Amino acid sequence: MKKNLLDGKSMKNLDYFFKARSVAVIGASTKPGKIGHEILRSLVKGEYKGDIYPVNPRADEILGLKCYKSVLEIPGKVDLAVLSIPPKIVPEVVEECGKKGIKAVVIVSGGFKEVGQEGAEIERATVQIARRYGMRVIGPNCIGIFDGKTRLDTFFQSRERMLRPPKGGIAFLTQSGTFGCAFLEWAAEDGVGISKFVSYGNRADVDEADLVRYLGQDPETKVIAIYAESISNGRKFMKACREVSRKKPIVVLKSGRTEEGSKAAVSHTGSIAGSYEIISSAFKQCGVIEVKTFEELYDVSKALSMLPLAAGPRIAMVTNGAGPCVMATDEIIKRGLKLAEYSERTKRELRRRLPPYAIVRNPVDLTGSATAKDYEVSMRSLLEDMCVDILIVFFVFQDTPLEEEIVDIVPRMKEYGKPILAVASGGSYTKKQSSRLQKKGIPVFSSPERAVLAAHALYLAAKYYCR
Amino acid sequence: MKKNLLDGKSMKNLDYFFKARSVAVIGASTKPGKIGHEILRSLVKGEYKGDIYPVNPRADEILGLKCYKSVLEIPGKVDLAVLSIPPKIVPEVVEECGKKGIKAVVIVSGGFKEVGQEGAEIERATVQIARRYGMRVIGPNCIGIFDGKTRLDTFFQSRERMLRPPKGGIAFLTQSGTFGCAFLEWAAEDGVGISKFVSYGNRADVDEADLVRYLGQDPETKVIAIYAESISNGRKFMKACREVSRKKPIVVLKSGRTEEGSKAAVSHTGSIAGSYEIISSAFKQCGVIEVKTFEELYDVSKALSMLPLAAGPRIAMVTNGAGPCVMATDEIIKRGLKLAEYSERTKRELRRRLPPYAIVRNPVDLTGSATAKDYEVSMRSLLEDMCVDILIVFFVFQDTPLEEEIVDIVPRMKEYGKPILAVASGGSYTKKQSSRLQKKGIPVFSSPERAVLAAHALYLAAKYYCR
Repeated sequence: MKKNLLDGKSMKNLDYFFKARSVAVIGASTKPGKIGHEILRSLVKGEYKGDIYPVNPRADEILGLKCYKSVLEIPGKVDLAVLSIPPKIVPEVVEECGKKGIKAVVIVSGGFKEVGQEGAEIERATVQIARRYGMRVIGPNCIGIFDGKTRLDTFFQSRERMLRPPKGGIAFLTQSGTFGCAFLEWAAEDGVGISKFVSYGNRADVDEADLVRYLGQDPETKVIAIYAESISNGRKFMKACREVSRKKPIVVLKSGRTEEGSKAAVSHTGSIAGSYEIISSAFKQCGVIEVKTFEELYDVSKALSMLPLAAGPRIAMVTNGAGPCVMATDEIIKRGLKLAEYSERTKRELRRRLPPYAIVRNPVDLTGSATAKDYEVSMRSLLEDMCVDILIVFFVFQDTPLEEEIVDIVPRMKEYGKPILAVASGGSYTKKQSSRLQKKGIPVFSSPERAVLAAHALYLAAKYYCR
Repeated sequence: MKKNLLDGKSMKNLDYFFKARSVAVIGASTKPGKIGHEILRSLVKGEYKGDIYPVNPRADEILGLKCYKSVLEIPGKVDLAVLSIPPKIVPEVVEECGKKGIKAVVIVSGGFKEVGQEGAEIERATVQIARRYGMRVIGPNCIGIFDGKTRLDTFFQSRERMLRPPKGGIAFLTQSGTFGCAFLEWAAEDGVGISKFVSYGNRADVDEADLVRYLGQDPETKVIAIYAESISNGRKFMKACREVSRKKPIVVLKSGRTEEGSKAAVSHTGSIAGSYEIISSAFKQCGVIEVKTFEELYDVSKALSMLPLAAGPRIAMVTNGAGPCVMATDEIIKRGLKLAEYSERTKRELRRRLPPYAIVRNPVDLTGSATAKDYEVSMRSLLEDMCVDILIVFFVFQDTPLEEEIVDIVPRMKEYGKPILAVASGGSYTKKQSSRLQKKGIPVFSSPERAVLAAHALYLAAKYYCR
């Protein structure tokens, strides 16, 4: 097993975080509920297959594992150390990690740059020590990492309280652990896969630019999503984005857009947010897709990880309830996308093959009487039409005439190679149907605006590839 | 039972819709899945206590009920008729309803003004007949009505596919049945109550203005929420809003804001949307709170129905994960609200009573180590502070140190009489905790922006009362 996890030759520094064959949890606690206990428990009770070593000078055994007084006492090789200990002793512990030959350190603990001068100095000293040993550090003041494939995570959020998503194409980098938790759980509930996750907090050493570069070469990663309150080194970050966005889409949510928000960012992770306008225009130049809310970040990443990019901006719509299409139309125009104008042939086909209650326009309105067959006929015609780049399908799953097998029919349309996005809002039945669609590769959005925004990103990302 | 449903003296025309003691379903079908069958089934299988009469000349019995050839054959009195029949025979059937002494008609069927000239003429003729008999008509081309108290509904969406919400303070009027379904189900899942619901479709007779006036006097209704693609009679509607918004908040989502969206509205319900800018500025003058997305409409209505209004714009925040507060701060500033500056006494108190890891600013950042006790201490101090008008509490429920009983502690803070909004995003555990909070009167929002928007509405509504 260990051999499969790491390929010695291609091993780069950051691989030690995600593909670590062994992990030491320093500050492992015997008390459930304590952060140092829960991190260990996440590793022990999860699907991670490597060796796990608790370190705590005042315990002999935790969760059935022998506990070590220091990393130096651990008999085997250790790739990664996760620290949950008071800031004051962090430098000496990191020194020990260096001596032990550990290559990667995640510092979960807070109490560094974000609390003031003294903390900042400890943080600086820690990084200096790490560099001396060629170690890389993620954090401090973060929830650390998760790898969709090796199933390694450093979370103090128990599995009972926080779902872990399946492996998949989205890498998520976040300055905020809180957003990290939400993103991972949204993905888990949608069955959307994550390649790698990093909550980098104060980002004392490894920063966004390092991670973007690393993920740019990561074969598991299809899309890079980032929540940032500040950028540590603007030039370095933009350079990395400029290169990587030609290979895979990068989506960024930048907060701290107002002066006050920027101040809030300082007390969160001790970083200054910088002028939003300048950053936002640099994003565009570097092929970064910018979004404005956390839900947008998730929606766009989901769409980009599941769908082909859009060859153009022309959107066709099919529905059994036209209200959301009015909202979608507004949003299509607002975002500079286009309402597809169907070819004469398509219109003829639709009129001929659909029942008389159907209204053949954009949207094709199948009305509340719509059947699965009506959807199939409309979707095939529209996807075959050269004047259609993107198809948005709206469902009122609540409408009883619509047969349940609609969720088997729609995913077959992926054969046309064009992006298909679905919209459905409602309660448990709608969620069940949506989840079935998503498992078969059709992303579902809970409002028309959210689907149009995702469609826009599919179009933007394609433009950025070709710039 | 019948006596309780209606008070003869205060009985107004529109009461016949919501408090009908007996309902005829005209076009009741024997075939499950057909609209005329499902409407009848919703009534029979639901909690509605009045008499139900299926009408269909080609059936003797449906769902265990005797079926009548025409309404004229029904022995008892009928208050409400629900029609699901081809447009061509609607006028003669409405004539029969008039002869039978029916006072209220809901036409679910489509195929009227929205499909063209011929349909428009049938629609006009139908209304003329209804008026001759003093009948009121809701629809056509709609899903009809729901009353939270009498549990009467006219939906062809079965209970297996669409949840019905509990009774409560929100009245929702919608031109789109699709949005209606989603709104009702979101409310049902959140345990948020609905007083009355009307999907009015083509609004051939009863229009938004009639309904706003009626709901303004309805003691069950605390907030009026409206989704409109067009307004039938702008002057009449604005006049009604101007009066009613002094008594209860009115929230409107207006779609068809672009020319193209406006055209889409025409093919949806046959109505022209009108100039958005003019309508939007009229909303402000008439004390209408305008929102821009469907999720905003729901969030704002939920907050207004659950919380006291805000005495001012000053917002305090408490959190165990600061990322969302950076986003919230941006949004607070963008919307013209204010970050509360705590009194010296509050700051002293907080520093004295909170553990050293807590950062006393706005937000009060309790960090991932936060306990329920920390939240209680902070919330009490902030709510006692005269410089705080609104409190937003952020939870990372996933963080294991936070005890489960937090959801019992927070609702007790309602005693301070100030609005308290919560933010939490995540999977099943977070949803369970959020649902517990909501059942005890603390609304929970899934993103910081959504909570700030709701807070803004609490402030706006208070200003509109006093204008």
